[in-house]
Amino acid sequence: MNRSDLFRLIQKKKSFLCVGLDSDLNKIPKHLLDSEDPVFEFNKLIIDATFNYAVAYKPNLAFYESRGIKGMASLEKTMNYLDNFSNEIFTIADAKRGDIGNTSTQYAVSVFDKTSSGFSFDAVTVAPYMGADSVQPFLAFPGKWAIVLALTSNKGSDDFQLFSDKNETRLFERVLERTSKWGTPDNMMYVVGATKAEMLEGIRKIVPDHFLLVPGVGAQGGDLDAVARYGLNDHCGLLVNASRSILFASAGHDFVEKASLEAQSMQKEMEVVLRTNNLI
Amino acid sequence: MNRSDLFRLIQKKKSFLCVGLDSDLNKIPKHLLDSEDPVFEFNKLIIDATFNYAVAYKPNLAFYESRGIKGMASLEKTMNYLDNFSNEIFTIADAKRGDIGNTSTQYAVSVFDKTSSGFSFDAVTVAPYMGADSVQPFLAFPGKWAIVLALTSNKGSDDFQLFSDKNETRLFERVLERTSKWGTPDNMMYVVGATKAEMLEGIRKIVPDHFLLVPGVGAQGGDLDAVARYGLNDHCGLLVNASRSILFASAGHDFVEKASLEAQSMQKEMEVVLRTNNLI
Repeated sequence: MNRSDLFRLIQKKKSFLCVGLDSDLNKIPKHLLDSEDPVFEFNKLIIDATFNYAVAYKPNLAFYESRGIKGMASLEKTMNYLDNFSNEIFTIADAKRGDIGNTSTQYAVSVFDKTSSGFSFDAVTVAPYMGADSVQPFLAFPGKWAIVLALTSNKGSDDFQLFSDKNETRLFERVLERTSKWGTPDNMMYVVGATKAEMLEGIRKIVPDHFLLVPGVGAQGGDLDAVARYGLNDHCGLLVNASRSILFASAGHDFVEKASLEAQSMQKEMEVVLRTNNLI
Repeated sequence: MNRSDLFRLIQKKKSFLCVGLDSDLNKIPKHLLDSEDPVFEFNKLIIDATFNYAVAYKPNLAFYESRGIKGMASLEKTMNYLDNFSNEIFTIADAKRGDIGNTSTQYAVSVFDKTSSGFSFDAVTVAPYMGADSVQPFLAFPGKWAIVLALTSNKGSDDFQLFSDKNETRLFERVLERTSKWGTPDNMMYVVGATKAEMLEGIRKIVPDHFLLVPGVGAQGGDLDAVARYGLNDHCGLLVNASRSILFASAGHDFVEKASLEAQSMQKEMEVVLRTNNLI
């Protein structure tokens, strides 16, 4: 899915919501635990409940890998289910990968090349620490996207991402400046945490055209209006992720209904934002 | 395995060699491709051939994940095979993981907690970009190790790792300074590329006691003597990794013999180094 397709999808669904499928077996409703594959069953129900309100799904691979091969089977089934709607959904492997060149290529295969790995995500999150030859292999797959960590939503983001040089350029700004030369706004995005919404203004000066994947709205306390105010561009340019606030809106039998209502509520807010900014 | 155990193992085997099991299906000898699980078969033969000369094995997870669930099954069988020798071998999941706190905990489970994931590595490599709460969850598992990326062996390491502040502290030095306060030399190590051996002198001033995992000797051109000159400490403090130079020493039927000879040759060099420095 290219950038224009993604914008068209956002306009059609009047939403830039990404649902994070961080489907922790210990947190899903107990009545699902009797099914053959509880995590897949949960994901399928969550997808059905939120499909009309979301443009993207983002499983965080940690929650699947922690259950080993069984977990990877749950993920494979989930992604095969999403493949049924491949023109209507953008999929992100939240994996924070990155290694020396030939190894990053293997990681790219693991998320992009279905014939080898069983997975064909549209995008993967990438950690920039190891530099150009760790990021570029992900950009060599036509039609696929690398979403590079820039400024993350967690407390520890201060430790290194704000490290600054003598000109007061901070590391995350250096990451934006350098990595944006390795790809284009058609094959790269950036992770920018919603908890740092006020910093989006400066970020937009460096990468005006790229999509930003924004986690941290919802359970982590980020503010959608602030994100939109500083982050929107002329083709929306935002995918705002919510995970726990949707997935675990209820722990009971009404979790499907509650997840749907929560996603719908976010979509409604986003529709207002898109309309106010003449994007729909 | 704690730090004293590891040093005793190094003394016993007269080696600080780590064999990187980057077992690319496309590079293993063709005659193995008929077996039920060629990658496991290859790993088993490589382990048997190098066991007397190595203290550690380090599968890079990318080479297994690229083959999806099949690949993870090859890795699981390999690690179960190595579990037979758990007192004589240190095992490293080369995965470069790191995410927000609750997610890093899931990644830690994926490599450390056998009852959940099927894997019980001694250590995992961790990317520091996301800061304290992305690294600390890996340190919460007793007896397990986080090996943090500091200065890597690839060309792209210059892009961000050498980024420096107004006092000319470089990012990798900041990473060493900060992260070393989060753990101890008994649960943290650092990745330092052999291609940057001369920089080990400065690194040892910041982290005199930590073990360093040093890739880049062999196929990537690093020099063992230089690494030892600047990197050794009073309990060795080095694990030097070789992958391709051992694994693919021959593509023919003699690959076992050639891998064994290559590992032995490195062990012999290491024995001289250990003896010269009065460590055995």
